[in-house]
Amino acid sequence: MVAWKNFDQLESYKALNETECVDLVQALTAERVKNYTVPMAAGMSYNYAAKQVDDKILELLAKLSEEAELVEKFKELYNGAVINTGEQRLVLHQLTRGQLGNAVNADGVDKRAFYVEQQNKIADFANKVHNGEITNEKGEKFTTAVQIGIGGSDLGPRAMYLALENWAKVNGCFKMDAKFISNVDPDDAAAVLNSVDVSKCIFILVSKSGTTLETLTNESFVKDALAKAGLDASKHMIAVTSETSPLAKSSDYLAAFFMDDYIGGRYSSTSAVGGAVLSLAFGPEIFARFLNGAAEEDKLATNSNIKENPALLDALIGVYERNMLGYDSTAVLPYSQALSRFPAHLQQLDMESNGKSVNRFGEPVDYPTGPVIFGEPGTNGQHSFYQLLHQGTDIIPLQFIGFKNSQIGTDVDIQGSTSQQKLCANVAAQIVAFACGKEDENKNKNFEGGRPSSIIIGDQLTPESLGALLAHFENKVMFQGFVWNVNSFDQEGVQLGKVLAKRVLAHETEGALAVYSDLLNI
Amino acid sequence: MVAWKNFDQLESYKALNETECVDLVQALTAERVKNYTVPMAAGMSYNYAAKQVDDKILELLAKLSEEAELVEKFKELYNGAVINTGEQRLVLHQLTRGQLGNAVNADGVDKRAFYVEQQNKIADFANKVHNGEITNEKGEKFTTAVQIGIGGSDLGPRAMYLALENWAKVNGCFKMDAKFISNVDPDDAAAVLNSVDVSKCIFILVSKSGTTLETLTNESFVKDALAKAGLDASKHMIAVTSETSPLAKSSDYLAAFFMDDYIGGRYSSTSAVGGAVLSLAFGPEIFARFLNGAAEEDKLATNSNIKENPALLDALIGVYERNMLGYDSTAVLPYSQALSRFPAHLQQLDMESNGKSVNRFGEPVDYPTGPVIFGEPGTNGQHSFYQLLHQGTDIIPLQFIGFKNSQIGTDVDIQGSTSQQKLCANVAAQIVAFACGKEDENKNKNFEGGRPSSIIIGDQLTPESLGALLAHFENKVMFQGFVWNVNSFDQEGVQLGKVLAKRVLAHETEGALAVYSDLLNI
Repeated sequence: MVAWKNFDQLESYKALNETECVDLVQALTAERVKNYTVPMAAGMSYNYAAKQVDDKILELLAKLSEEAELVEKFKELYNGAVINTGEQRLVLHQLTRGQLGNAVNADGVDKRAFYVEQQNKIADFANKVHNGEITNEKGEKFTTAVQIGIGGSDLGPRAMYLALENWAKVNGCFKMDAKFISNVDPDDAAAVLNSVDVSKCIFILVSKSGTTLETLTNESFVKDALAKAGLDASKHMIAVTSETSPLAKSSDYLAAFFMDDYIGGRYSSTSAVGGAVLSLAFGPEIFARFLNGAAEEDKLATNSNIKENPALLDALIGVYERNMLGYDSTAVLPYSQALSRFPAHLQQLDMESNGKSVNRFGEPVDYPTGPVIFGEPGTNGQHSFYQLLHQGTDIIPLQFIGFKNSQIGTDVDIQGSTSQQKLCANVAAQIVAFACGKEDENKNKNFEGGRPSSIIIGDQLTPESLGALLAHFENKVMFQGFVWNVNSFDQEGVQLGKVLAKRVLAHETEGALAVYSDLLNI
Repeated sequence: MVAWKNFDQLESYKALNETECVDLVQALTAERVKNYTVPMAAGMSYNYAAKQVDDKILELLAKLSEEAELVEKFKELYNGAVINTGEQRLVLHQLTRGQLGNAVNADGVDKRAFYVEQQNKIADFANKVHNGEITNEKGEKFTTAVQIGIGGSDLGPRAMYLALENWAKVNGCFKMDAKFISNVDPDDAAAVLNSVDVSKCIFILVSKSGTTLETLTNESFVKDALAKAGLDASKHMIAVTSETSPLAKSSDYLAAFFMDDYIGGRYSSTSAVGGAVLSLAFGPEIFARFLNGAAEEDKLATNSNIKENPALLDALIGVYERNMLGYDSTAVLPYSQALSRFPAHLQQLDMESNGKSVNRFGEPVDYPTGPVIFGEPGTNGQHSFYQLLHQGTDIIPLQFIGFKNSQIGTDVDIQGSTSQQKLCANVAAQIVAFACGKEDENKNKNFEGGRPSSIIIGDQLTPESLGALLAHFENKVMFQGFVWNVNSFDQEGVQLGKVLAKRVLAHETEGALAVYSDLLNI
């Protein structure tokens, strides 16, 4: 049995607090860039040369990993322990893409077999839609998949779709457009519906519980639109939900695909939640390749040597930055337009998992946990908030992502280089600019440097590398949650707002809430 | 003459540091919600009842405003002083929407007249495009405007376009689609070009200097595409640039519209930078209404009474939170899908303006300046990062924005309320949940509260209210820059990365930079 202890109860905590971090201005040598790198799946690598750690600190981080039994805790997780203590649930999202340990049985079934069964059902359905066996009432092919979901049913799948949309178009596996309706703001659903031919849309209703208010409201919105167009909603909708939800057996849907309570929304991109929309958009084979990339990366996360486990190493360095160096936020900066919404997905993944003040036993912790995560693609961010990153009063660690090749392959040569080369040159330049700075007598033009970053480098953003990226960050967040001794798999912090919103809608308010309701005309 | 002093040199700094902030759990009464509100332009209001200030702190903030001569500094600015000391420039973006003080002459012309002249030229051009006087070579009407620009030439105009797109469609003034190419990633331009009929596109090349590498690269990208389609690029492109730029007099463009050095990129949405694309998309009358909203809000920013000056009050409370309460970031949370990219615009506006470590005289400051800004629309954010905002270990001030009415007006009644009512109920509920919290014996379900927020409430997101919102935040950022004694109008922090990227592309690298360049295959 592993021991769950608060971070500040560990020997390593004290030892790490006594270290002095590395002065990057001096330390960032060519040797270091060559050596401080760890292979990832799908031919990628995680390079941490521009982090404020050295061999001594890395040794202490390795000790922390051992002392906190991080890899053992992961092993417990994938072997089916009740890691989500708050909700008394197993945590099984890795099982959607592979099996790292023993067979896991729950609800009377082998869960790996259950997830694979759902994938096969989705694949079969998607193939029938693509080959015209399943059509609209007029016998016309469906052209567009519209996901109706919020939070994890939206951010991850949307980010993954955008990441592969252009790749799929170039590689001849683009099957259907995908659109997303998430917000309860009626303008969200109305605008999406105005942009499509509803008669050729399959709507994917995604709600694990079958009770998410925003999603059910948007379902009604869509059903209204279908009815107005004289269409039978039950011939245009599928559901992704848990087997016990009210949506599961309804005749309102063409088909229902299942997830379960062991997969949190923010960890659900590789489950049926991402599977339905991505299989419809790109075909089941592409979704399978995406899962393979994730599975390959998951395997690396089982290595106990931190230099062979990029997610673990990334997690440990992040903890060092958060707790020893006092950095409060992290910027995620993919140099890839296709990853435009990947930071928004990571924002949920990280902040909803580790934005906690109590440990697994419900006791307050005395150290900072999850940081603020934000980001935009480079080079756009360079012309926006990088000013503060370079010269602001706070230091903000940076997570770069870059690919040697573009997805579409169309390019121009201007001033002796392609756009892709310019893109890559910029990310290389930024790492060094942040780390090393540049002295200037004019202090307004002075760059102090010492601003840490890491970079994940890949050949190209493909289904495999995207899967690996996704799994890397899921596992990183998990390991950090283990260090902080928090439950990364519940989200009690979202409940109070829901309760109060219901009260507002029922006009059962008083005091400040009543006045705010009046001001907003409810 | 006003005196430019560091914040910590002021009496008010000490006095504010000695205050104790308000305990919102106790303080947030109905009375307070009614009273702590300031009218804004376009019928909006700024409500700060859920901020940790009371009358005593507000009095000290009023004193700070006086002592730091904030309104006088604004007066100097709009009367044409050299407020951008780093670059020795006037700061005149307010003049694009009105004249708050004396006539300002620069470059031998009256600048208000110059900006109006550009607006009139754009209006004339847009009208001719809309009525078919200006067409493509086949005499077909242009259907799409594609903005090529990065940073302020992209984020602000894109956010404004998205904010009004659906409103314009419903109100019969939608003239042309707008698309945006910004990133030097070749997949950005390629994907946009794949999504349009280039023969019916007007491309708007936006670069003040005429030398922005990303933008010129994307221009070539577009010219390549036009050439491949057998089209004459000069019949499909217009330029927005400064009069002295290489683009200004080129026969490569159908027309050129001018901005100047007195308008920073991030402050340029109301100049020709936003004017061209927004006038093409929605018609010049709508752009004029947007300017009127901004002008009306600017006037409020001249009031020396902080309770009649919402931007000033918002700025002062933000400074109190940053410097006295130690909060490092701020979340911008519009409950409006149309404002989906407004947080990204504010991120640039705020972080690029005030992410500085030296004062106006180039001396290091000893206090934190601009915070990290991030955000997503509600209710989406509720199902994402709100967990950390409610229960994380750090307190993050929140800036809500809400409207009583939707833009499109299509809605459904589910469980006794419309989507719009649900949207508004959620924002009201969140404010109270964050401020007041809720005790629970199960500490995992406990909400400590005391998490401050403000809300801007409007009737509907229209051209006028959007203009007012934009100006509010521009003026807020300016006032905060005045308090911190930084130059909010330059961005020297973006230079080093540019220099190093050029060196990479010229293969003039050594050490770490050379290895990173190798790793990225440049």
